[in-house]
Amino acid sequence: MNEVYVVGVGFTKVDRLFERSARDLFAEAMAKAVDDAGGLKPNALVVGNMTSSVLMEQDSLGALMADYSGLRGVPAFKVEAACGSGGAAFYAGYAIAKSGLAEVVAVGGVEKLTEMPTESVTKALAQAADADYELIHGVSFTGLNAMAMRLYMNKYGYRYEDFAHWPVRMHEYGSLNPYAQLRSKVTIEQVVKSQVIADPIRLLDCSPISDGASVVLLVRGEDRAREIARSLGRDVLIEVAGVGLATDSVDIASRRSLLTLESIKIAAQQAYSMAGVNSRRIDYAEVHDAFSITGYMSLESLGFSDEGKSVKEWMEGRFTKGDKPEVNFSGGLKARGHPVGATGVYQVAEVVMQLRGDFPGYKASEPEVGLAQNIGGVGTISSVIVLRRRR
Amino acid sequence: MNEVYVVGVGFTKVDRLFERSARDLFAEAMAKAVDDAGGLKPNALVVGNMTSSVLMEQDSLGALMADYSGLRGVPAFKVEAACGSGGAAFYAGYAIAKSGLAEVVAVGGVEKLTEMPTESVTKALAQAADADYELIHGVSFTGLNAMAMRLYMNKYGYRYEDFAHWPVRMHEYGSLNPYAQLRSKVTIEQVVKSQVIADPIRLLDCSPISDGASVVLLVRGEDRAREIARSLGRDVLIEVAGVGLATDSVDIASRRSLLTLESIKIAAQQAYSMAGVNSRRIDYAEVHDAFSITGYMSLESLGFSDEGKSVKEWMEGRFTKGDKPEVNFSGGLKARGHPVGATGVYQVAEVVMQLRGDFPGYKASEPEVGLAQNIGGVGTISSVIVLRRRR
Repeated sequence: MNEVYVVGVGFTKVDRLFERSARDLFAEAMAKAVDDAGGLKPNALVVGNMTSSVLMEQDSLGALMADYSGLRGVPAFKVEAACGSGGAAFYAGYAIAKSGLAEVVAVGGVEKLTEMPTESVTKALAQAADADYELIHGVSFTGLNAMAMRLYMNKYGYRYEDFAHWPVRMHEYGSLNPYAQLRSKVTIEQVVKSQVIADPIRLLDCSPISDGASVVLLVRGEDRAREIARSLGRDVLIEVAGVGLATDSVDIASRRSLLTLESIKIAAQQAYSMAGVNSRRIDYAEVHDAFSITGYMSLESLGFSDEGKSVKEWMEGRFTKGDKPEVNFSGGLKARGHPVGATGVYQVAEVVMQLRGDFPGYKASEPEVGLAQNIGGVGTISSVIVLRRRR
Repeated sequence: MNEVYVVGVGFTKVDRLFERSARDLFAEAMAKAVDDAGGLKPNALVVGNMTSSVLMEQDSLGALMADYSGLRGVPAFKVEAACGSGGAAFYAGYAIAKSGLAEVVAVGGVEKLTEMPTESVTKALAQAADADYELIHGVSFTGLNAMAMRLYMNKYGYRYEDFAHWPVRMHEYGSLNPYAQLRSKVTIEQVVKSQVIADPIRLLDCSPISDGASVVLLVRGEDRAREIARSLGRDVLIEVAGVGLATDSVDIASRRSLLTLESIKIAAQQAYSMAGVNSRRIDYAEVHDAFSITGYMSLESLGFSDEGKSVKEWMEGRFTKGDKPEVNFSGGLKARGHPVGATGVYQVAEVVMQLRGDFPGYKASEPEVGLAQNIGGVGTISSVIVLRRRR
């Protein structure tokens, strides 16, 4: 009775949008989402964002984005969960919709990174790690992920170049995605020879520094969703079948294992259980690949590959068109781009469009069950959202 | 059927706690709340906080606080809504409890301000205002409130010293509250002669810079709440009867009126309507008095006084013991202190204790219906929570 449905999506191109402000980007995403839902006006807003306090010197972000997107007055607040802010905002917005506190809930994300020097951005993003026990030693966020990658290589016997197949495939998909930030194809050799950022992570293993904003609109109840779909001439409903959110220690030294991202496992279990599915039932997935290693660990922690096997399976052509699941046809964080707090909301919008059949880039094979998975920190917080196409 | 109840509260002393970290404070508040609820362990956490990104260089705050308070793994995120972060976190936590996503939801707040120089803190708090249209001109957050106070004085014909009765009464209550930050009494003359911060606001009109953490625990369903109360030998239940959250423009120049805080009015209307009450039905209230003027405007926007009348009525002795509502027996932000993102959660805890009859300071007259009201910015975001004592 109280199922929640996604009835509209909207987002900006992901890019280095030097001339545009965060509020400007957010207003565009909101206008597009409202338009996609046939003019439906939200009466609550949750905004995912990581760095506005540091890079924009701006708090009160929920109210600011509400006002600039024409929603002055509505309940609105910012959710921060580092790079997982968008997914966590979705969880909060889902709860508001499900509880009946608001009838039409907008979940958005926005990030404005390119206005500041790269070193300021790198420092701001490192705040995902533990300031008192990790950053104080001078490690960067890429450095923490590099340690995980080195450990993975040593434990499972991979060479560096084996990982390079991830960015190659993501750039290929990105070249087909009109709103992706990185639209050029790259070769294995280019990845391997790109600049070392934190060994063994190369520049082309990293998602870019991005600006962008994204919004999805939620309503409660099948009747309401069906009425909206009918008025728009759509013959499918997109149900939020399951949501999961879970955390781990912030500092990675406190973990039992560095290669199993427990928070993804817990969040996936919650979402699968709520949706009444398991990992084999997922047709299409957008997974979090801030770095190549992150993408592979995500596939394993979601249950799509056994531990240590995903890199090999990926090289053999798994997760491409016709496989189950098909993965990251948007180009992923790697090529679509990673506007941090907006990323989790982009992923949901992308899965929705693949389920509806109107994704503007490389199309999935008519999926029925889709999944969006977003991470903050090195698996410090993970969200898993299962969406189902219904007639 | 799905009503939400507060079953435990916990908090630290509010003070300049130089030697203690945010995670340490939060763990104390959580342990006390869990203990107050007979050992009930939360399985979701929402953390209200404003300044951790800027002053502690720490994001991922939800996960960090979950881990350090013994809840590693649970869904957790930070909510930012400037000084209204605690109230907004309560709204999000209420939605999670009400939706059934988690059985026991902890709503917490934490702020650690005293580790940094006062000018850094002042700058961080000013981020509640609009960076692009207000702060760029050099105004401080106190300056914005001073403009509202000057306008109020001119419009309604008050002298500066008329406002000084607010801090005098708050300090009196604070002297009776064992966990308040400011426990000394002050006189009208001391207030009037205290240093001018931004004319007409004096030092003693301002809430102090505070550290502190607070937690309340929520469950859904009367049966569950009754079972917990019974096991603890309590004969009352504290129901969350109504919640409201509303926003306004961040920059005050865009408002229709500067003296009517629209966001409070809207949030109060939502909360009153959900609870089936009006302002005359409130027996006890904790209102947001970051500055004296803020306290008076809150009373008016909540409907406790007519516009322009609250200062006069306050001087005449209204809102004291035996009146309806009784207001801020904790000492308010002014004397209890204002650990920014925790403040809204302290207020809820205080109203709960007054309704239960176990508040450790100045006791209200056996209230049945209580209210907690929290603001971010100059009325940019407001939350109003109505709590009801049930047998």
